[in-house]
Amino acid sequence: MIMNYTLRHAGYESNEDSNQIVKAEGAYLYTKRGQKLLDLCMAAGSQLLGHSNPEIVSAIQSQVSKGTIYLANNQYIHETCELLSQVVPSEYSDYIFSNSGTEATQKAIRISRLASGKSLIASFEGGWHGSNEWTLHDSGSRFDLDKQALNFGIPTSINKDRLIVPYNCDETFEILERHKEKLAAIIIEPIQGSNPQSNISGFLKKLTAFCYQHNILIIADEIISGFRVSLSGASPKLGLKPDIITYGKSFAGGLPVGLTVINEKVSQMSFGNPENAVITGGTYSANPLMAVAATATLKQLIQKNYTSFNTESDTFKNTINSELLNKNLPFKIISNGPFLRLAFTDKPFKSRAERDKLEMPATLQKTFRDIIKKKEISWPTNGIVLPSFEHREPELRLAREAIISSCIETSEFL
Amino acid sequence: MIMNYTLRHAGYESNEDSNQIVKAEGAYLYTKRGQKLLDLCMAAGSQLLGHSNPEIVSAIQSQVSKGTIYLANNQYIHETCELLSQVVPSEYSDYIFSNSGTEATQKAIRISRLASGKSLIASFEGGWHGSNEWTLHDSGSRFDLDKQALNFGIPTSINKDRLIVPYNCDETFEILERHKEKLAAIIIEPIQGSNPQSNISGFLKKLTAFCYQHNILIIADEIISGFRVSLSGASPKLGLKPDIITYGKSFAGGLPVGLTVINEKVSQMSFGNPENAVITGGTYSANPLMAVAATATLKQLIQKNYTSFNTESDTFKNTINSELLNKNLPFKIISNGPFLRLAFTDKPFKSRAERDKLEMPATLQKTFRDIIKKKEISWPTNGIVLPSFEHREPELRLAREAIISSCIETSEFL
Ligand SMILES: Cc1ncc(COP(=O)(O)O)c(C=O)c1O
Ligand SMILES: Cc1ncc(COP(=O)(O)O)c(C=O)c1O
Repeated sequence: MIMNYTLRHAGYESNEDSNQIVKAEGAYLYTKRGQKLLDLCMAAGSQLLGHSNPEIVSAIQSQVSKGTIYLANNQYIHETCELLSQVVPSEYSDYIFSNSGTEATQKAIRISRLASGKSLIASFEGGWHGSNEWTLHDSGSRFDLDKQALNFGIPTSINKDRLIVPYNCDETFEILERHKEKLAAIIIEPIQGSNPQSNISGFLKKLTAFCYQHNILIIADEIISGFRVSLSGASPKLGLKPDIITYGKSFAGGLPVGLTVINEKVSQMSFGNPENAVITGGTYSANPLMAVAATATLKQLIQKNYTSFNTESDTFKNTINSELLNKNLPFKIISNGPFLRLAFTDKPFKSRAERDKLEMPATLQKTFRDIIKKKEISWPTNGIVLPSFEHREPELRLAREAIISSCIETSEFL
Repeated sequence: MIMNYTLRHAGYESNEDSNQIVKAEGAYLYTKRGQKLLDLCMAAGSQLLGHSNPEIVSAIQSQVSKGTIYLANNQYIHETCELLSQVVPSEYSDYIFSNSGTEATQKAIRISRLASGKSLIASFEGGWHGSNEWTLHDSGSRFDLDKQALNFGIPTSINKDRLIVPYNCDETFEILERHKEKLAAIIIEPIQGSNPQSNISGFLKKLTAFCYQHNILIIADEIISGFRVSLSGASPKLGLKPDIITYGKSFAGGLPVGLTVINEKVSQMSFGNPENAVITGGTYSANPLMAVAATATLKQLIQKNYTSFNTESDTFKNTINSELLNKNLPFKIISNGPFLRLAFTDKPFKSRAERDKLEMPATLQKTFRDIIKKKEISWPTNGIVLPSFEHREPELRLAREAIISSCIETSEFL
């Protein structure tokens, strides 16, 4: 078939591909030619309740005949907000909706600049906050690409107003110290997608103290960790005390969403003067279809047992890691609860920068992905393994076996 | 009822409001207390086929049980692309999906900078391209607000890489001439939302010639005009020859979408070197739910009679304008086909800047909005009247009568 177009979306280029997905249910994706794949990506964590969750499906089906978008005040978004206010810590009073994580972090950064009257934004090496202008610097390996940088097309003059800081090392605070007067905010994933660690609380507490002391705002990017590692996210669990939090992904059943919440201090400093407010709207923001999907999602999440969700993921990790250790294989799962990653090294590391130095070459990592793909596993392109509540013992066993055997087979190429 | 949150979204603040919308169908919105409102905004044009279009509704309902998001190549997005390629002029070979108009223009700007190797982006006074960093400067009156600027929270240092140019006057080309060496691209709505004119073709052709001569890329922002003023948008109709086009709104049944298309020249200069490409992905971009909604929309749009859609809108405008003229009322509808605006003056103007000087004070404009709201009309907050294919003679008559009588009543306060 001749295509009259090129779809510029990594991995979506071909329309001939019989591996194209046509259906998703629970923990599984189904391809055009009838394969059933165990999904370990779950739309980068968006499908925390599993694909095609029945309650979300029927909420969307029923709303869609009442309209997908009104661009007007509507009761559905207020129902969502009421539920959110039971989950999001109460000091975050103001909710700003948008349509993606990128928009949520862009708005968070803009609000932090307005509120602080300063313009420098710090973010961390190995961090990821979407495609907003101020934090794009990733060396590409988050997506296991060989690209050197992701900030093509962004003028270098903006570098004056952004600062990329090494993660979780002595140098971190030395650099922050030098810029403390000019810093509007520091944006951080409380658990890094590139480097999900379980013992990160000390660093986050130190960062909180530093920012508090120097009047620097903290933006916690909980777009993956929110509603996942605990109902109220990673920050409360790990001792990070943000002024602004961004959410997305898992709370709206897979419909496009971003949410930026701010505490009362920031609210006063930004929206306190209505003549002085950042723009918050957007054609699709706070639309009723997303709202009912979010309401259906939140109602279920509130009922979930997060303790066992965390424990099961920890057991999953520990079982794989002891097997890998037994077999003396240079791989290791790192994680913080149900937020995991396979490292292509068995050495300890504290940051993505250290990880990059220790891991086996990109070609071998690709070999691993090619091998595990053959085992009917949909392996995450961003490397982050994000189980859903529909990943039960059979799925976890399948995943364990596939990961271990793929590590064994990959190690034959070492 | 005590709200534990503040929803920061203009007009969405209260959850007590009995005017909250609960349902939308065809050309109408329905409120909580049972009112039926004629919608003249149609979600800023997103609902070109009317609210709750049966084919779109059933496409979404059927897809949602197969999954809302896969984050993987899927057949549905390719079906959408195939249809798009029948509608989007064939020289635009590459399609980049995103989730809002803001994301679409952000990506367009980034690609134009990468392709040109330059960084200065020009946009026009009175223009609107969403919340991306590079074009936000609107004085607020697009939203009939008194705010002085919308770029709060954006560092002024970026002004070096952006240029705001007066619209459609002698000065336009003098200023562009002075910056021609540094200009990467000029972004323009072929029909401005703040100032939809029917005789704009001369200006657009002159701009095309200028850009061609000086090797400056043109980005046409067709986020409202695309699929509306003609199936293939405003540019071909008006003689603008863009290198990059952004679409959104009307082609995906109201689901969040942005689309940036680029011609082969720009494709070569940006994606030609895979090591050098701008980032195109995004969690929700190109998701299958949007895809089936877009496919269902495009299939219907292809069958529509755009000539009569344009003619009906022209008749609508002319009927109102002759009535206003007869009655000597200082109002006038300006438009380009089914893309209309009520001007609060009867004097001719070429730009938003001129309009602002001629129009009656903001308080009187608010009086008009308060009056027409009482006539069960949902008047667009951004002032742009965007009829759908479901606005037939009864709706157009209702709208005509409401507009004329509201002008009469407003004029009593003059
Ligand atoms: C922590 C984090 N922030 C922001 C984003 C950007 O979200 P989106 O892809 O919806 O723009 C992502 C997405 O991967 C993310 O993981
Ligand atoms: C011409 C134009 N461009 C861009 C946008 C931004 O789109 P969105 O609100 O989806 O971000 C709009 C929305 O009003 C628009 O009218």
